[in-house]
Amino acid sequence: MSIEELLHQIHLKKSFLCIGLDVDLNKVPEHLLEEEDPIFSFNKAIIDATHHLAVAYKPNTAFYEAYGLKGWKALQKTIDYLNKNHPDIFTIADAKRGDIGNTSTMYAKAFFEDMNFDSVTVAPYMGSDSVEPFLAFENKLTILLGLTSNIGAFDFQTKEIEGKELYKHVLETSKEWKNSKQLMYVVGATKATYLAEIRKIIPDSFLLVPGVGAQGGSLEEVCKYGMTKDVGLLINSSRGIIYASSDKDFAESAKEKAYQLQQQMEKILKSK
Amino acid sequence: MSIEELLHQIHLKKSFLCIGLDVDLNKVPEHLLEEEDPIFSFNKAIIDATHHLAVAYKPNTAFYEAYGLKGWKALQKTIDYLNKNHPDIFTIADAKRGDIGNTSTMYAKAFFEDMNFDSVTVAPYMGSDSVEPFLAFENKLTILLGLTSNIGAFDFQTKEIEGKELYKHVLETSKEWKNSKQLMYVVGATKATYLAEIRKIIPDSFLLVPGVGAQGGSLEEVCKYGMTKDVGLLINSSRGIIYASSDKDFAESAKEKAYQLQQQMEKILKSK
Repeated sequence: MSIEELLHQIHLKKSFLCIGLDVDLNKVPEHLLEEEDPIFSFNKAIIDATHHLAVAYKPNTAFYEAYGLKGWKALQKTIDYLNKNHPDIFTIADAKRGDIGNTSTMYAKAFFEDMNFDSVTVAPYMGSDSVEPFLAFENKLTILLGLTSNIGAFDFQTKEIEGKELYKHVLETSKEWKNSKQLMYVVGATKATYLAEIRKIIPDSFLLVPGVGAQGGSLEEVCKYGMTKDVGLLINSSRGIIYASSDKDFAESAKEKAYQLQQQMEKILKSK
Repeated sequence: MSIEELLHQIHLKKSFLCIGLDVDLNKVPEHLLEEEDPIFSFNKAIIDATHHLAVAYKPNTAFYEAYGLKGWKALQKTIDYLNKNHPDIFTIADAKRGDIGNTSTMYAKAFFEDMNFDSVTVAPYMGSDSVEPFLAFENKLTILLGLTSNIGAFDFQTKEIEGKELYKHVLETSKEWKNSKQLMYVVGATKATYLAEIRKIIPDSFLLVPGVGAQGGSLEEVCKYGMTKDVGLLINSSRGIIYASSDKDFAESAKEKAYQLQQQMEKILKSK
């Protein structure tokens, strides 16, 4: 899916909501554990209940890898289900990958070819030749870590290099990479005021913003500082939606939470 | 496996060789492609031929993920084979993971619990709380990216923060993290002279050094600047060993290449 198609979906659904599928078997409703594939059953129920309210889903690969082979199978089934039943949904493999060139190419094949995700998150530490192999895939998007929402972001990302924070160097440098138009960026919502600074460097790029809800970020603040004339934002919520209830009504509760966020987003989109 | 046990193995085998299992089906001998699981068959043959010459094996997860479910299965079979038949071998999941705390815990579970690797490589960009969840696992080692061997290392890693390169800040900062004694570091061999600088910051830590051979690094140079009184080095070779021949004699050829490196290592160990 292209950015243009994503934007079309945002206007159609009046939503720029991304739902994070971080499935922890200790948190899913107990009755699902009796099913053959509880992770996929959980995801399918969440997707069925919320797909009209969200434009993107973001499985976090760690939560699948932790369950070994059956986890990887559940991830495969989840992306297949999305691609088959909801081709209008933008899919993100939240994998935080990145390695030397030939290895990054293999990661890109894993997520773009084998699984057919629309995008993957990538870490910048290893520089240009660790990211460009992802950008070489046509009609696929690469979501580079800029400023993350965790406390450890202050260890290195905000340290100054020649009077400018590392994460700003990452944003600036990445603009020079081959096929950089296929870049999006992860920017944590817990630091909404940083968004004004970020927009000076990447005025038009789409940002994937985690940290609204469970991690304490505010939707209004993020939109105030980060929204562009072409929206330019995907707001992710994981735990706040998918674990809204741990009972049999979990999908219905997830739908309600997603609806509340979609309604706030519709209001914001109208006011812009 | 602890660092003490690894060191014991190094002295026993007179080798500090790590063999990288980056299995690309376009490069394995054709006759293997007829087997049920060509990736595992390849790995098994390489391990059987070289395990007396190497102290560690390092499957690169990207090369398994690229083949989807059957790749993940081959990775699982490879680590199971190593753990069952060669418990004296140090195993490294070269995965370059790292995310916010609860997600890093899931990655750690994937590699330390589900697969029972001895260690995993981790990227530092997201800081303390993205690495400490790995360090929380007892008797497991976390191998942090310091200075990598690719050209992109110069994009950010060597940029100066307060007069000191980013990778040095990573090394210094990581020493303060909880359970930092369980840290090892990735340092690329293509920049051997940097090792003298690195040893000023982490004088005793074990370093995993890729880039000898295919990527152009010199074993003598690395040992000259990086070796400690307790060795402190694991030298990785992947393509130079496993693809020494693409014919039916591939395992025998791999053994010869590994033997040449082991002999050089024995000589270096004796001279120290």
